[in-house]
Amino acid sequence: MAKELKDLTKRADNYSQWYNDLVVKADLAEQSAVRGCMVIKPYGYAIWEKMQQTLDRMFKATDVQNAYFPLLIPKSYLCREAEHVEGFAKECAVVTHYRLKNDPNGNGVVVDPDARLEEELIVRPTSETIIWSTYKNWIHSYRDLPILCNQWCNVMRWEMRTRMFLRTAEFLWQEGHCAHATAEESEARTVQMINIYADFAEKYMAMPVIKGVKSANERFAGAVNTYTIEAMMQDGKALQSGTSHNLGQNFAKAFDVTFVNKDNKPEYVWANSWGVSTRLMGALIMTHSDDNGLVLPPHLAPIQVVIVPIYKNSEQLAEISKAVEPILLQLREMGISVKYDDAENRRPGFKFADYELKGIPVRLAIGARDLENGTVELMRRDTLEKSVHALEGIAGYVRDLLEEIQENIFQKALKLRESMTRTVETYDEFKVEIEKGGFILAHWDGTPETEELIKNETKATIRCIPLDGDTTPGVCMVTGRPSARRVLFARNY
Amino acid sequence: MAKELKDLTKRADNYSQWYNDLVVKADLAEQSAVRGCMVIKPYGYAIWEKMQQTLDRMFKATDVQNAYFPLLIPKSYLCREAEHVEGFAKECAVVTHYRLKNDPNGNGVVVDPDARLEEELIVRPTSETIIWSTYKNWIHSYRDLPILCNQWCNVMRWEMRTRMFLRTAEFLWQEGHCAHATAEESEARTVQMINIYADFAEKYMAMPVIKGVKSANERFAGAVNTYTIEAMMQDGKALQSGTSHNLGQNFAKAFDVTFVNKDNKPEYVWANSWGVSTRLMGALIMTHSDDNGLVLPPHLAPIQVVIVPIYKNSEQLAEISKAVEPILLQLREMGISVKYDDAENRRPGFKFADYELKGIPVRLAIGARDLENGTVELMRRDTLEKSVHALEGIAGYVRDLLEEIQENIFQKALKLRESMTRTVETYDEFKVEIEKGGFILAHWDGTPETEELIKNETKATIRCIPLDGDTTPGVCMVTGRPSARRVLFARNY
Repeated sequence: MAKELKDLTKRADNYSQWYNDLVVKADLAEQSAVRGCMVIKPYGYAIWEKMQQTLDRMFKATDVQNAYFPLLIPKSYLCREAEHVEGFAKECAVVTHYRLKNDPNGNGVVVDPDARLEEELIVRPTSETIIWSTYKNWIHSYRDLPILCNQWCNVMRWEMRTRMFLRTAEFLWQEGHCAHATAEESEARTVQMINIYADFAEKYMAMPVIKGVKSANERFAGAVNTYTIEAMMQDGKALQSGTSHNLGQNFAKAFDVTFVNKDNKPEYVWANSWGVSTRLMGALIMTHSDDNGLVLPPHLAPIQVVIVPIYKNSEQLAEISKAVEPILLQLREMGISVKYDDAENRRPGFKFADYELKGIPVRLAIGARDLENGTVELMRRDTLEKSVHALEGIAGYVRDLLEEIQENIFQKALKLRESMTRTVETYDEFKVEIEKGGFILAHWDGTPETEELIKNETKATIRCIPLDGDTTPGVCMVTGRPSARRVLFARNY
Repeated sequence: MAKELKDLTKRADNYSQWYNDLVVKADLAEQSAVRGCMVIKPYGYAIWEKMQQTLDRMFKATDVQNAYFPLLIPKSYLCREAEHVEGFAKECAVVTHYRLKNDPNGNGVVVDPDARLEEELIVRPTSETIIWSTYKNWIHSYRDLPILCNQWCNVMRWEMRTRMFLRTAEFLWQEGHCAHATAEESEARTVQMINIYADFAEKYMAMPVIKGVKSANERFAGAVNTYTIEAMMQDGKALQSGTSHNLGQNFAKAFDVTFVNKDNKPEYVWANSWGVSTRLMGALIMTHSDDNGLVLPPHLAPIQVVIVPIYKNSEQLAEISKAVEPILLQLREMGISVKYDDAENRRPGFKFADYELKGIPVRLAIGARDLENGTVELMRRDTLEKSVHALEGIAGYVRDLLEEIQENIFQKALKLRESMTRTVETYDEFKVEIEKGGFILAHWDGTPETEELIKNETKATIRCIPLDGDTTPGVCMVTGRPSARRVLFARNY
């Protein structure tokens, strides 16, 4: 057993430490020398790339185009949309100078006081302001609409407490920014994108999510309405995994973006924005992984299958390699990513432990005796079950098994969520249940004040007003006032 | 003819204005509100994405892995490698604060003076320093080597005079950073990467390049040796299109990165770095385009073929669409990107002009009469030649034609370069010839002083000491001292 593996903290002992250990030991990321910023290591980045490629394809299938807008935003732009600045402008990286010079005292370099910017520039925390100031020049008539742009980029928010992938000062994300001629079209796109995020989460990440609408308190700064997908981590906490904002005409008004509509009348443009980030990496890790390491869904695993030869000498290795060759070919022809690890400087036991830690969905091991018997030993990472199979037809078996694993880990996560989701009637009951973790469906009177009170007393927030599920009205568990339907409460990341 | 097209400046009238016009009118990019930063528009970004995907595949085929390192670099890191700081630290965006607050006078937001960073952070101009400070923790033994990492990211250099794609304050690029156990291996990788860049330039961009080594004056700050590919633009100026730097042990020493070698002795790690940027977009535009607009090489065109129906009524359109359907299918099965533009709100003439401006390699037009005759009208963008072909078999013809166009524009660019490359013997001759533009091969004594003198007197720089070509020794055209071989001079972007 590899040393690293033994050092992995158990979830039951310290969930938070388990997560931090796993991120580092599975070679996903590490803290950098810059406060709150991480280095995404090649293995972690390879998973992110698979997420990117999949999402990018899904976006483009709905006519979204990629573009790129500047990293730095003039300070004054942030103030144009009143609510937006309250929500975003405060904790951010501010560029004030554009030059360094040699220290007159000979100690390296210092900021050149003569190179002060007239107006400070902000490292983008999100790009609505710079994009809508640009759209002003792109949009004149309804014929210029819709504009469906997305950008993959880095953003910065000067968070006080950071955790790798979940909350970092710099993170990678995509942000879509659409401009429409009608409120209806913009609302439809907002919903379309949250549906794409939910599909991606469930079909690729194998992570069940609850789609819903944010309460006013939790809404994006500057939005009319925020849609969200909320996932439950194994410790019962909620993780907001993607959001899609209907911005109404707020940014169009702030940046004076009008168009001549079909009736030849000027009108403000309707907007939405939507994004997911490297936070999804944190969600992926915490949804499926176990005390042995990462568990990756086959649809996002950079390596889906690893084959390890077990041999005593080079003749045995040569024979095994010859037998493996056609299997590698067949798997690759099926579009399956497979690695044949015949490296001589690591023992099979070390390799097994390492691939377990890294969450490779299927491992095949072939020794000299297997060769004689025409068999192969298979281990599936999700259940850690081992089984012996005929070499003949193994590629087809593996292909089907990958789909089975994908479905199995989704179902496992879904069952956990269902077992940890309760309905409560009274606030006393709520206070008891929230301590146990998980999701709670309860009635709420719809006011920010009641929401705030619950948050202060229990640390639970309204994750969303679900789009699906029970819509029976009732009375608020705190105030007894009418409630339109149960909403979803949880403590959250 | 579309209005925009008529407004395009002619190359002969003002080459520089032609370039600026074309970038904007072909919807590639535009200036942003932030000084020196551009917005890359969807069409421009689609070309950049094709470049990225191709290069990324070429890198990965040589075992390079992608990763991501922080945007911000502590100021002190830049001073660690003495030459590096001289070359890079000076003109850059400096983050000094991490918070804004409401202006006490009610005018928007101001920088919070209480939120001053202890140490200023620099927006990366290049990432050697942050990456080598990270590698220190990754490398202990020769078994940890080589490390072959690349990142696709944004960087900033506070350039005083900017031009879209060619020189912008913020630009997108990839930067590869490799760590090796031996000097030989690192040198081999440095050369391998400049060869990949040259292959990409010639086979995908259809842009002939000269591979060579930079003189000491033009070398990357902190490098032992810089390899470059130099291309000639249509105005005869050189454009440095990609560089690969052998960094020796300079950064390993600066960041104290050692490893235990096979002899069990500590040794500094050997490094190289290599990059290409959105500058390649400028190179692509200026190599092939003409007074009618963009000319794109088929291997990088987001849309390779456009089909425009010409019809008088919806019955005709329906018939044409029915005939076009199988052609679309066949082209797509061949992996060719094709657009069928049956939009009703733009006349065919407008469409033709627009696709010419945007550089679509092949345009097919089909009218009612064509349908009767079983023919189609084809225009190739590189020569603007029109021809009529049988509909039967047109997909195969177009596939072959795309390759022919790719080869033709490469040969055209190569011929221009050859016609504008001269060999001169005397400095007087040099001064006359350099005014005519183009590349000049001349003897130089190898000293920075002579290079500097030539630059000051003629604005020409040594683009590179070519790897290939005539290696006959001679005497320096300026000083008469011995010269090992002719080097390449030009004025440059």
